[in-house]
Amino acid sequence: MSPAGTGRWLGRIDPKWNIAGTPNGGYLVSIGLDAIARALPHPDPFAVSTHFPSRAEAGEVEIGIDVIRAGRTHSTASVRLIQGGETRALVVATFGDFQAISGPTLVRETAPSFPPPDECVPATGPIAPDFMKQFDLRLTPDTATWATGTPSGVAEMCGWIRFGDGRDPDTRSLALFADSFPPTVFNVGPAMWVPTLELTVHVRGRPAPGWLQCRFQTRYLIEGYLEEDGEIWDSRGRLVALSRQLARVHT
Amino acid sequence: MSPAGTGRWLGRIDPKWNIAGTPNGGYLVSIGLDAIARALPHPDPFAVSTHFPSRAEAGEVEIGIDVIRAGRTHSTASVRLIQGGETRALVVATFGDFQAISGPTLVRETAPSFPPPDECVPATGPIAPDFMKQFDLRLTPDTATWATGTPSGVAEMCGWIRFGDGRDPDTRSLALFADSFPPTVFNVGPAMWVPTLELTVHVRGRPAPGWLQCRFQTRYLIEGYLEEDGEIWDSRGRLVALSRQLARVHT
Repeated sequence: MSPAGTGRWLGRIDPKWNIAGTPNGGYLVSIGLDAIARALPHPDPFAVSTHFPSRAEAGEVEIGIDVIRAGRTHSTASVRLIQGGETRALVVATFGDFQAISGPTLVRETAPSFPPPDECVPATGPIAPDFMKQFDLRLTPDTATWATGTPSGVAEMCGWIRFGDGRDPDTRSLALFADSFPPTVFNVGPAMWVPTLELTVHVRGRPAPGWLQCRFQTRYLIEGYLEEDGEIWDSRGRLVALSRQLARVHT
Repeated sequence: MSPAGTGRWLGRIDPKWNIAGTPNGGYLVSIGLDAIARALPHPDPFAVSTHFPSRAEAGEVEIGIDVIRAGRTHSTASVRLIQGGETRALVVATFGDFQAISGPTLVRETAPSFPPPDECVPATGPIAPDFMKQFDLRLTPDTATWATGTPSGVAEMCGWIRFGDGRDPDTRSLALFADSFPPTVFNVGPAMWVPTLELTVHVRGRPAPGWLQCRFQTRYLIEGYLEEDGEIWDSRGRLVALSRQLARVHT
């Protein structure tokens, strides 16, 4: 990312994050968050909402940042990723500092018990071989069945994920992990392409080093539109992010 | 709302939507959606994400609209509500047309069975008497106990809602309904004020006339921050919206 005027940068969308020729949405969010993090005084994204008005492609991208407010506890900025004059992604993020917060804690759910990573199914992904190489992704045996032609019948994807290069997760990478599993609907029927219209991630804590445990669920597929609800726990079993996206199935 | 230049309007935040002196977040979203609806070719909000960088107050408000893209199937715009030069709310919405969509439907959950409105507890709200007059809101007996000094111990609020003036719900009012129940945390402990940092609503269908059935749940209250997950069904028992907000408890 190089500066290109006040609040403007030039960046690059690397094709290694493509899925079937199109850059992954979570990767676009992470480009936006990198730009926002340079402009805001707080270190951690707390809430990140992204709309995807048009389809991005690998290559050069203009990045336009707008700081909305830099407050004491939270700060907010929006960023646009622009190609050919068209906005490909509009990211709005509110940042804070997890080291500076305190308050009541009451957690009603614990991490689900999955088989350990070694007993799960490595996802190699013929549709997205380069993208899958960026991660070490292991699907639970129950939710990996679609890959061998027998969808489970339940719109869920569960498993473990970490970066392929050994990097540990941080608060800024959680939005990327939240969009890196195969679509839940692969387990219920034919779906060629499931583009995201909107993705919101609430980061709830700094992840410990190691594996992230993830569960993605769809309860409502209605006229081709679906939500994917994600929960991400860190290696200590603590919830570190909730995500939800609105997507559309193309069959 | 009156025009004030290209993409700019002057509006008014009516104090009757205040809660303890501060305008309700969902009401601010509805002001933003009214402005966006004038600028986009599609009738229905599909995904609406709002960040609240600073506290609004009743009175005049500048409204700045930015059309991001007007496409064939979806269109996207952002709008800022500004007072005293500060952004109070930044709303990004992707619109579509529910009459024009079709695709597979697979619904895993049905509306929960609540006691009918007549057997629920009318919420009159001493903290927000004017706000509560805008609605006819009935809490289920199980979740209404906080109001008489005995919180249920479970961070949920459930019940029925409709406009107080007899108007039927539409897709643009669902974001308002999604922020109109008492905070879930009133059922687990002392909370004076629970301001919203971010609220995303996914509208999933046009609501039928009549009551809306709502369930709001918090699973993770962590260091004072919580999500409120909402589901809204219409009078035919069809899911018409999913909502989630990130909020912070002040005790």
